[in-house]
Amino acid sequence: MQRYFIDDDNSKVDLEYSKIIIMSEDVHHIKNVMRMKPTDQVVVCYQKKSFLCTIESLSNTEVSLNIVEQLEENSELLCKVTIAQGLVCKEKMEEVIDHITELGASFYLPVLMERSKIKLVAEKLNNKMIRLNKIAKEAAEQSHRTSKLDVLEPMKFKEFIKFSQGFDLCLVAHVDSETTPYIGDLVKKGNSMLILVGPEGGITPDEIKALKDANFIQVNLGKRVLRTEVAPSYIMSIIDMVRGNNNEI
Amino acid sequence: MQRYFIDDDNSKVDLEYSKIIIMSEDVHHIKNVMRMKPTDQVVVCYQKKSFLCTIESLSNTEVSLNIVEQLEENSELLCKVTIAQGLVCKEKMEEVIDHITELGASFYLPVLMERSKIKLVAEKLNNKMIRLNKIAKEAAEQSHRTSKLDVLEPMKFKEFIKFSQGFDLCLVAHVDSETTPYIGDLVKKGNSMLILVGPEGGITPDEIKALKDANFIQVNLGKRVLRTEVAPSYIMSIIDMVRGNNNEI
Repeated sequence: MQRYFIDDDNSKVDLEYSKIIIMSEDVHHIKNVMRMKPTDQVVVCYQKKSFLCTIESLSNTEVSLNIVEQLEENSELLCKVTIAQGLVCKEKMEEVIDHITELGASFYLPVLMERSKIKLVAEKLNNKMIRLNKIAKEAAEQSHRTSKLDVLEPMKFKEFIKFSQGFDLCLVAHVDSETTPYIGDLVKKGNSMLILVGPEGGITPDEIKALKDANFIQVNLGKRVLRTEVAPSYIMSIIDMVRGNNNEI
Repeated sequence: MQRYFIDDDNSKVDLEYSKIIIMSEDVHHIKNVMRMKPTDQVVVCYQKKSFLCTIESLSNTEVSLNIVEQLEENSELLCKVTIAQGLVCKEKMEEVIDHITELGASFYLPVLMERSKIKLVAEKLNNKMIRLNKIAKEAAEQSHRTSKLDVLEPMKFKEFIKFSQGFDLCLVAHVDSETTPYIGDLVKKGNSMLILVGPEGGITPDEIKALKDANFIQVNLGKRVLRTEVAPSYIMSIIDMVRGNNNEI
């Protein structure tokens, strides 16, 4: 069933009277792309809860819905994962955001690192953030999540080091010795994880030193060398196996 | 270090005299893209072995190398994994091949399924196969593998069912009940695995019936709904964790 994420900026929600009015650009999607009509049903996600709703009426600017029931869904990981990545080009960033949203990540954070080949253009940042968050919203809807991933504004490396202080576990995907542990052995605990992947050119020795001083633990991602756009999907798949499924492993 | 896959069609290998002559299009890459010179070193992969080599001489058509030593590498999974996928568009197929090669898959097989929206154009198939195998070769070089992934020619669904008979384990990513087991619990054993992912529109009930009759086991890929281009990376990451790392899990 089609799924839409809404928030208080672009919708009215009255849980007491079981009413929702969507006023976002999803109105166009519901009315003109999906060509839905009154009595059709959708799932609406609001404040990390999901509701089965029936369409009551549609106009060009609003869709009114009646809540049928709150759904009991558990598609979210039990831990919050923030994937930080050395700033990469737009296409790679979009691919990574799309994939890790489907795989359950909570945040994506671009970090300006020494070997990032991409420069940030301040004037374009606002539009870029809107576009990246839209990709995350669509991927979350597609994959039946109840929360969407938030794309955070790019940070300088020094800021990032400070930002890392609030997490239960900080990891960096970087192998410089045979004793570097495998990521799967380190993600069994911790409610909030921050995991850094370098840009295409990798992470410099100075950056590794600063990360170690800030209590980051180095991890390997298996025996092969993964490119920066493949590594985040690998990380999220492993965390999903270790933490998301409660299967015997 | 730069890595090149060679075979007998485009190279001469004399292990007794520790000599290799590359005559493939890699000559252009070595000479003009990488601008290598005599005494520079590369890794050459031949028949699933890898060799550290020193360049002896370069011409426009040949690069002559001396083998310094055979390398002891173990970047390959201990099981052979064939990812089969309902035929998808060229861009998605290229992305999947690139990612699963880095993640250790041995074969990629496109399957013509009922809900595949893409039509095969027989005249274009040869060029397409060359291009897809080139992507696999480059991804294998990039990720420091010693074997490359082979892209197999597209098969009709009936042919695919016959093809599946030679495998230790056949799985299909398709959930139609709450008891469908998690993939991570099923890939612990088996030297050769065939894993099918549907096209965008999914797998039809008739196809599922035929797969079950051919001993395919249905598996889930976690709690979220993964698109067909994300599912193969998830599958390979989980297999890499379960089978590739010999870590305590």
